[in-house]
Amino acid sequence: MKEMLKTLEVNSLDELMEHIVPKSIRSYSELKCPTNMGESEALEMFQEMMGKNEIYKSFIGSGYYDTITPSVILRNLLENPAWYTPYTPYQAEISQGRLEMLLNFQTMVVGDLTGTGFANASLLDEATAAAEAMTMCINTSKKGQTKFYVGTDLHPQTIEVVLSRAEHYDCDLEICAPENMDFSKAGDVIGVLLQYPNTTGAVFDYTELISAAKEAGSKVVVASDLLASTVLKPAGEFGSDVVVGSSQRFGVPMGFGGPHAAFFACNQQFMRKMPGRVIGVSKDSRGRPALRMTMQTREQHIRRDKATSNICTAQALLANMAAAYGIYHGPDGLKNIGSKVHGMTKVTEAGLAKLGFGSKHADYFDTLHIDTSAVNGSDAVVKAALERKMNLRKIDENSVCVSMDETTKPADINNLLSAFAMAKTGNDTLPTGVDAESLSSSTDTTVSAKFARSTEFMTHPVFNSHHSETNMMRYLNKLSSKDLGLQTAMIPLGSCTMKLNAASEMIPVSWPTVGKLHPFAPVEQVQGYMQMMQEMIDDLADITGFHTVSLQPNAGSQGEYLGLKVIAAYHKDNGEAHRNVCIIPVSAHGTNPASAVMSGMRVVTVKCDDLGNVDFDDLTAKVEKHSDNLSALMITYPSTHGVFESNVKEVCELIHKHGGQVYMDGANMNAQVGLCSPGGIGADVCHLNLHKTFAIPHGGGGPGMGPIGVAKQLAPFLPNHINAPNSGGDKPVRAITAAPFSSGSILPISYMYIRMMGSDGLKLASEVAILNANYMAERLRGHFNILYTGESGFVAHEFILDLREFKKHGITEEDVAKRLQDFNLHAPTMSWPVVGTLMVEPTESESMEECDRLCDALIKIREEIQEIIDGKADKDNNVLKHAPHTADACLADDWDRPYSREKAAYPLKYLVDNKFWPTVGRLDNVYGDRNPVCSCPPLEAYED
Amino acid sequence: MKEMLKTLEVNSLDELMEHIVPKSIRSYSELKCPTNMGESEALEMFQEMMGKNEIYKSFIGSGYYDTITPSVILRNLLENPAWYTPYTPYQAEISQGRLEMLLNFQTMVVGDLTGTGFANASLLDEATAAAEAMTMCINTSKKGQTKFYVGTDLHPQTIEVVLSRAEHYDCDLEICAPENMDFSKAGDVIGVLLQYPNTTGAVFDYTELISAAKEAGSKVVVASDLLASTVLKPAGEFGSDVVVGSSQRFGVPMGFGGPHAAFFACNQQFMRKMPGRVIGVSKDSRGRPALRMTMQTREQHIRRDKATSNICTAQALLANMAAAYGIYHGPDGLKNIGSKVHGMTKVTEAGLAKLGFGSKHADYFDTLHIDTSAVNGSDAVVKAALERKMNLRKIDENSVCVSMDETTKPADINNLLSAFAMAKTGNDTLPTGVDAESLSSSTDTTVSAKFARSTEFMTHPVFNSHHSETNMMRYLNKLSSKDLGLQTAMIPLGSCTMKLNAASEMIPVSWPTVGKLHPFAPVEQVQGYMQMMQEMIDDLADITGFHTVSLQPNAGSQGEYLGLKVIAAYHKDNGEAHRNVCIIPVSAHGTNPASAVMSGMRVVTVKCDDLGNVDFDDLTAKVEKHSDNLSALMITYPSTHGVFESNVKEVCELIHKHGGQVYMDGANMNAQVGLCSPGGIGADVCHLNLHKTFAIPHGGGGPGMGPIGVAKQLAPFLPNHINAPNSGGDKPVRAITAAPFSSGSILPISYMYIRMMGSDGLKLASEVAILNANYMAERLRGHFNILYTGESGFVAHEFILDLREFKKHGITEEDVAKRLQDFNLHAPTMSWPVVGTLMVEPTESESMEECDRLCDALIKIREEIQEIIDGKADKDNNVLKHAPHTADACLADDWDRPYSREKAAYPLKYLVDNKFWPTVGRLDNVYGDRNPVCSCPPLEAYED
Ligand SMILES: Cc1ncc(COP(=O)(O)O)c(C=O)c1O
Ligand SMILES: Cc1ncc(COP(=O)(O)O)c(C=O)c1O
Ligand SMILES: O=C([O-])O
Repeated sequence: MKEMLKTLEVNSLDELMEHIVPKSIRSYSELKCPTNMGESEALEMFQEMMGKNEIYKSFIGSGYYDTITPSVILRNLLENPAWYTPYTPYQAEISQGRLEMLLNFQTMVVGDLTGTGFANASLLDEATAAAEAMTMCINTSKKGQTKFYVGTDLHPQTIEVVLSRAEHYDCDLEICAPENMDFSKAGDVIGVLLQYPNTTGAVFDYTELISAAKEAGSKVVVASDLLASTVLKPAGEFGSDVVVGSSQRFGVPMGFGGPHAAFFACNQQFMRKMPGRVIGVSKDSRGRPALRMTMQTREQHIRRDKATSNICTAQALLANMAAAYGIYHGPDGLKNIGSKVHGMTKVTEAGLAKLGFGSKHADYFDTLHIDTSAVNGSDAVVKAALERKMNLRKIDENSVCVSMDETTKPADINNLLSAFAMAKTGNDTLPTGVDAESLSSSTDTTVSAKFARSTEFMTHPVFNSHHSETNMMRYLNKLSSKDLGLQTAMIPLGSCTMKLNAASEMIPVSWPTVGKLHPFAPVEQVQGYMQMMQEMIDDLADITGFHTVSLQPNAGSQGEYLGLKVIAAYHKDNGEAHRNVCIIPVSAHGTNPASAVMSGMRVVTVKCDDLGNVDFDDLTAKVEKHSDNLSALMITYPSTHGVFESNVKEVCELIHKHGGQVYMDGANMNAQVGLCSPGGIGADVCHLNLHKTFAIPHGGGGPGMGPIGVAKQLAPFLPNHINAPNSGGDKPVRAITAAPFSSGSILPISYMYIRMMGSDGLKLASEVAILNANYMAERLRGHFNILYTGESGFVAHEFILDLREFKKHGITEEDVAKRLQDFNLHAPTMSWPVVGTLMVEPTESESMEECDRLCDALIKIREEIQEIIDGKADKDNNVLKHAPHTADACLADDWDRPYSREKAAYPLKYLVDNKFWPTVGRLDNVYGDRNPVCSCPPLEAYED
Repeated sequence: MKEMLKTLEVNSLDELMEHIVPKSIRSYSELKCPTNMGESEALEMFQEMMGKNEIYKSFIGSGYYDTITPSVILRNLLENPAWYTPYTPYQAEISQGRLEMLLNFQTMVVGDLTGTGFANASLLDEATAAAEAMTMCINTSKKGQTKFYVGTDLHPQTIEVVLSRAEHYDCDLEICAPENMDFSKAGDVIGVLLQYPNTTGAVFDYTELISAAKEAGSKVVVASDLLASTVLKPAGEFGSDVVVGSSQRFGVPMGFGGPHAAFFACNQQFMRKMPGRVIGVSKDSRGRPALRMTMQTREQHIRRDKATSNICTAQALLANMAAAYGIYHGPDGLKNIGSKVHGMTKVTEAGLAKLGFGSKHADYFDTLHIDTSAVNGSDAVVKAALERKMNLRKIDENSVCVSMDETTKPADINNLLSAFAMAKTGNDTLPTGVDAESLSSSTDTTVSAKFARSTEFMTHPVFNSHHSETNMMRYLNKLSSKDLGLQTAMIPLGSCTMKLNAASEMIPVSWPTVGKLHPFAPVEQVQGYMQMMQEMIDDLADITGFHTVSLQPNAGSQGEYLGLKVIAAYHKDNGEAHRNVCIIPVSAHGTNPASAVMSGMRVVTVKCDDLGNVDFDDLTAKVEKHSDNLSALMITYPSTHGVFESNVKEVCELIHKHGGQVYMDGANMNAQVGLCSPGGIGADVCHLNLHKTFAIPHGGGGPGMGPIGVAKQLAPFLPNHINAPNSGGDKPVRAITAAPFSSGSILPISYMYIRMMGSDGLKLASEVAILNANYMAERLRGHFNILYTGESGFVAHEFILDLREFKKHGITEEDVAKRLQDFNLHAPTMSWPVVGTLMVEPTESESMEECDRLCDALIKIREEIQEIIDGKADKDNNVLKHAPHTADACLADDWDRPYSREKAAYPLKYLVDNKFWPTVGRLDNVYGDRNPVCSCPPLEAYED
């Protein structure tokens, strides 16, 4: 550290901070969280806290089911940094492993399980997937279409989120029983959202309904269940356009609500309209098949305020787990599980009938809707179950639902039957013959012919070769060894904050006391979670300088959306519902304008000046122009250019003066924690990407969490949740996620991070992050142009390398990015926020040696560029243009490059001893865009 | 499977078994263990069982200390198949990662912490390391030297094991207080074994004693403590020849006794006499530094009955953990831990003094010997401690010892003080000022100048660069990515049984209820362990067809040693102490004769016939010749040639007729389980390598466990243990390991294996293992000569490929082994049991595809050999001789081979997509043998 400070000609970190963080916003008081704890101490304390969660057998269902994570997947995927530390696979050449697994997810979910044809590589949860589907219908609707039907029998949380999303769209949403949906006036229905099986478990034949809808020009979206699809006719076969749902029960713990991978599957017609990321098959520079993210990747970056969705961070890690679960079990294994679950349900129905409890549905998969009028109300049954450590779902005063899953054992059914017996007779001994064993032999457990699935699925070899643990372990290992994660090298992605995801932070994620909790379990059973969340809220409020925090958003994008919704509600509450202008700097992340649009705002862009700051004059002009209608300003701090803007306080004051609220994008909190705060600066609301600043791993493209902190005046508008009625404010906006606290089971990561860092550590992290960035900027200056710096000449925690001057010599930022792969390095963020640049963020987790390694590589590449400029290397046929170099390319017999193989592969010496090989050559994007193939290619495609 | 059976022209597994397993020994009854359990069910059941273990705070010391395993090491090393599945690094080119870590262990332990100069890469436990040191002294003693002194103040279990080992040597062992050791008669003392700090914690200055001993020509062995050495003058600096000890407290859980890595460090004079494996620095075919096992590797294979030790499987994984712990903390971190522990001890002494309890030693490190006469006996104190969930060590009626460790917190000390207060006054409130906080400020916690360490240690950069989790994770990842383990490919090592180590079997190893138990904890606290061990004993007795089982031996070699000791005791008990001839087939594993010699027997060799069977005529002749003195026959079954000998019953009968006992080497149990049994065949004792047949991973060279099953007449002689008095028979031999049940914490792996396989699964595993071997043999026949087969023409679970015919063309088994690395494959066992051959054992864990992959590779290599035979390829300059090919060799600018780079690297197509690169070229063994360097080379050595 001393050496680094010396390079910067300062004597101490404190002195450096004085230069960099504007005095006007600097906070000198200590954070309130306690001092740091050692890792074993913290683990012990936290284990005790989570021990307060009580694991009851869950029959609640409602979209969350207990499941068995095969240990081979637990250990080699969920607990393996090679899987959980990488970033979204933008650098395809060093991401072929997870790209292949995500493609497996798409294939398994599509054509395959849902019976549609295409799918994306995950969305945040089933409810938002349904909302996305609705928005897609609206956005592609025809003139005159106004109505959107939502079935009454969907999961309540889905209805809530869809209602919430619809608020800002011009569409007439009607919650309606499927049998009452009216398609007689051809042309007025935008779409319909059904659930199959429905929330109380009923299975209906939607053939007629759907054909009527489609004849009337309506689109059809069906929320469905993947496990049900293994034995029931899949939703896609009814002719649905879109099928959404959750893949949670494919081996991903309930985790008090998440994270889980939701899916969005559709037929070919909508393929290019799908929100989120889609993996496709393209080819590489040598013509071999190679995978990449395809089509509308980061569409909001390109379309900005024309974007139809703000989804960015998704649920890649969980999609990969679900895919691995499917691969390990294979189609036959899945069918067995599906049949077993259905059989258990049948047996339970038979037993309950013998006890005098009728069930309401003729056809069902795993859920029974039980009439409890026999016992004078459902509460008695729920209580008897609770006494036996079981949770049921109360539907109303006279009925309950019970859902089975792959963990349900005969003993559980007997226990369940006993609870009903108890409620009825006060005695829980079961009559002879009324037990799971006897009942199984007397009950027909097959699926009724009317609904039985007749089509094959998952016939691709990848789903039929890895059913032994040995094979599965090797497949997981083979894939992960193709990917560059933090276990191999730094990932210096500006704005993404790829920091250490410490093992002690990750360990609790695998604890049953964290994973085995249903998000709708009674609050008395989740006291460990409640305590952790309250402490998190207090700590995050303190860190952000805000009044309070909502933990609901499960990604940064959702935080933005919720924050803006809250602002809109605030204005409305003030009688200023007309305030709808959202000012956003040109440099903003694409999610910002997308979120603004989704929350019903009109985007007005403001320019940046030459230093990378918001252009204050332009801002003033725009604010004044829109003063009456000003709703909000969205800014990022330090700016997306990596600069601590010194007039940020004035900016906030200006907005306030004109009646607006300031939304701060917290993606760059890693430069603020302990040094200044959004609240202190004057913002009113801010999201935190816990998967950036607070150590949740990126998981190869998610999960994440995006809680928002809000100032006092906005607190009343924070959302509640139907299953956590008092979690928000007293004038709450509607919920935006399916689970009350979204991805509860990864919150422990951030919690452990804060506890192990402590107040001093958190501040020190910001300081070192800033030091690292400035050290690197200093080393690279003279070799490259550093695009923006603050007034002091320093950068914040990241900086932009300008490569535009090389364009005239044919060298692009992409060439440099790909060439870095030849050095075992991941490229910095490419062409964002400025086209033609690379944005470097080292974070505090990197040592001087690793920072130097990146600098050395960049300097070496600069020399290689010079060779081209000087004409010593060919303009097109050079190490940069051909980068990255795979091993097979380097030793091909037909090598005919004007440079040596050694120069290609080992531009620096250390690489000889320690080489990470990209597994495909540079991706051919043009080809991929023209020929989108989004399902697994046949095996032969990989052979030459 | 059908396809494989078809290849063998049989219709079913049953039919195949009928052909292969001799009817005379075949068992058709089912194994008694229950039917198989699913993995989640088994984990649940086992968690409950282990929940019966109670974790008390341990102050017992005695060589076992609680410790903190840094999570980065837990997750990325102990829980990572890349570290725990590989084999002993015989194939150096694909083992550079763990070779480097083991070298770190040697360096850290040597010169470095113990202050000697060299060390080996681990032994089984401290007590056997002491016994090995004694044997080395005896074996290198001069004429006239007869006496070996062992200090009275060593750990009791060390004294016991040394006594046990000495029984069979011609040496006059005297347990003697150090001050009474007499070196006045120059020349009569072989050696002396001291402990520093001693078992009750005292630290004495041994300068004079040691110089007196050395002047008298005696060797000096000191058992010492690594953590003490960070702050105390290390044992090596007193002039000791050998320093032994345990590295357990360097991050390896106590685990109810093991596994832990013991060490053997010595000065240069004894370097070539060290037992066990030693890692050295050599160079590769291109002259670059490369690591390998050096010197007496597998010495017993070469020296057989001249071997001085039978050590084979050691404790590589645990040595790697300890090394990683040292690297992560670095010298300063270790010194801090050492000082903290010492400080806590000082504080405790001060507190106890204030409570009226005196401590007996002036100087100590972490252990106090407390006089309890103030309270009328030590039991009262022990009891008061137990009530507070603390374990002390009772020394005698009037004193106890308490040992501190890195987990001891001020609260623990207060709790301890309270217990003493309670015992004395019946009131546990501590007087003001008598608490850890107050006492720390008033106590001088520095080490007394007389003993303070003044020398530096661990100055090599490797110990000074990885103190952040990011760096440590990457270092661990960098090393493991150089090694080929089961996560990458099959490891078809004949006799080694490299099968799947399933994640569900490994998970319990990390549970605190498994790891945090002291081996000498009161039996009431370890009821989970007791239940598991009893079930294991019952199951293993059933599987082996024996009366009972001893879990004491912690490797196969130790099982052999104990089995033979038991046989010797049996003969002696029968008044036939003169029976000392042990007949061993030439084909036996080298540990057999070595163990025979160690247990005082005389080895007589018996030949094998052309079919690979024991030559019955020769055997009869030898047995008759030695009839009066016949002690035992040692045989392996199926034979080390991979054959089910059909006359094995007659062989056993012959031995019995002549008064001998049959020792069966159980290394090949993987072919027997459920099909036949050692007991059923007629053997009297047999060891099981749980790290072969019962799924304990090989850990890159250990840990292992080698329990023995014995027939009824031998059961009385099974050993007890001073800390488990009733665990053996009623005429017990002395204990052979430091902990009563050796490596308790890895027994769960085998336990889970048996439960998850169930009776049917265990049998099926044997059948599939045999099927796989026969399938491969069948595919390879016609390409290679298969050396031995049974009478039916089938092999057992492994088979020998004869390569001797290629020798005349210059091609050796080593060339084939190294060439296999170019196919991402690990070579089969080389030149054992027959020189010039490869022995292939696929195990049941491998799929037909993977078996085919090895066959395809071997067939391809056979083609490459043919090219040489046919003169199409050069005799010396060819793909085999230059194998393995590293990436840098393949793309070197100066490539001048007569074959292409692609042929070198990608002999088969799949390798292009999925290549595992050896990281160094073929090792230069001659160079390494001539220039043994066994400590870390300077960093520059790795640069060119
Ligand atoms: C500046 C900025 N804002 C918003 C986001 C969106 O966050 P998320 O990906 O969690 O939705 C990002 C993500 O990269 C970002 O960098
Ligand atoms: C036939 C045979 N016997 C004995 C042993 C020694 O066992 P261990 O290495 O556990 O000491 C081995 C080890 O490979 C073996 O193969
Ligand atoms: O390890 C062996 O010697 O087989």
